[in-house]
Amino acid sequence: MPHITLNTNEPGIRGLFRFRPETALPLNGLVEALLCGPGTLTRGERELIAAYVSGLNECRYCYSAHAAYAAEQLPEGMALVDQVHDNLDGAPVSAKMRALLDIGGAVQRGGKQVTEDLVAAARSAGATDVEIHDTVLIAAAFCMFNRYVDGLATVLPEDPDFYTNRAKHIAAHGYLGVLQQETIHK
Amino acid sequence: MPHITLNTNEPGIRGLFRFRPETALPLNGLVEALLCGPGTLTRGERELIAAYVSGLNECRYCYSAHAAYAAEQLPEGMALVDQVHDNLDGAPVSAKMRALLDIGGAVQRGGKQVTEDLVAAARSAGATDVEIHDTVLIAAAFCMFNRYVDGLATVLPEDPDFYTNRAKHIAAHGYLGVLQQETIHK
Repeated sequence: MPHITLNTNEPGIRGLFRFRPETALPLNGLVEALLCGPGTLTRGERELIAAYVSGLNECRYCYSAHAAYAAEQLPEGMALVDQVHDNLDGAPVSAKMRALLDIGGAVQRGGKQVTEDLVAAARSAGATDVEIHDTVLIAAAFCMFNRYVDGLATVLPEDPDFYTNRAKHIAAHGYLGVLQQETIHK
Repeated sequence: MPHITLNTNEPGIRGLFRFRPETALPLNGLVEALLCGPGTLTRGERELIAAYVSGLNECRYCYSAHAAYAAEQLPEGMALVDQVHDNLDGAPVSAKMRALLDIGGAVQRGGKQVTEDLVAAARSAGATDVEIHDTVLIAAAFCMFNRYVDGLATVLPEDPDFYTNRAKHIAAHGYLGVLQQETIHK
């Protein structure tokens, strides 16, 4: 049961968006820019970073959601997301993605854990400054979202297809589009 | 030296805002809603939560900034901010603020650390659902901002009056107002 009385029984962060639309809008604007906006990392790769960090924070709702969103948008699908979650070292990702995921893991432990060596490894694998910036901010943002969702003890969805259905909407309409359709105008 | 090449030598998060205006806007929209928007916690009280969490995360830039913003807007000024930072248990805050700061400290350790007991203590001290929600999200947001600022190794300001000067601008114009004046239009 959530720690506060929400005005809907929607699971996870959706109930929080409806409870507080004033913060829902910039929160969705942030993930829209980071995960859907123009960029040299694919949307699937960016969702993979979000899922990986959410897994490290053991946030079941955010991990399940962003794992589904990553799987929907990565050619390798859920098999790769599972491998990255279970054992990054053995997962078949590019050297650049491995280095960026290592940076994301460092951010999850704390900002000062991002060392010059980690950044140099990403750069020598071809990562640009914007990709390094966005990786740090995606990882940091999910340290926020994970704490938000679990800190208010939101409930998990009962429908087993919740995350995969939502993944198709997010892939098609982005976060701000889905927010507008489902939360603000409902 | 920052991990990435910024397009300005502005310190802390300001350099990141100028580097990536696409994310600066929603990030400032979030703190505008949380720290400056209408609410039953004063702006000083909300900044105190932000400063307290930034102190726990040992983020020098964010702590110094939000300590100054809190001091600017709290009747008790920096003396109270220092006491909360140094020893919350002995600090002369209301029972409600103490309970909310305890929730903020729990969020800093991890979302699941916010227990029913902590929430019940806040509620019995008079905290509303919106105040509990906002406390969790302020604390979570600063777990993001702290990681963003330190994860990219941004530099600290050289001017000793940087934070107090900025505090007056933030108090007068809010975060979106200052962003517009200093970053987007500069």
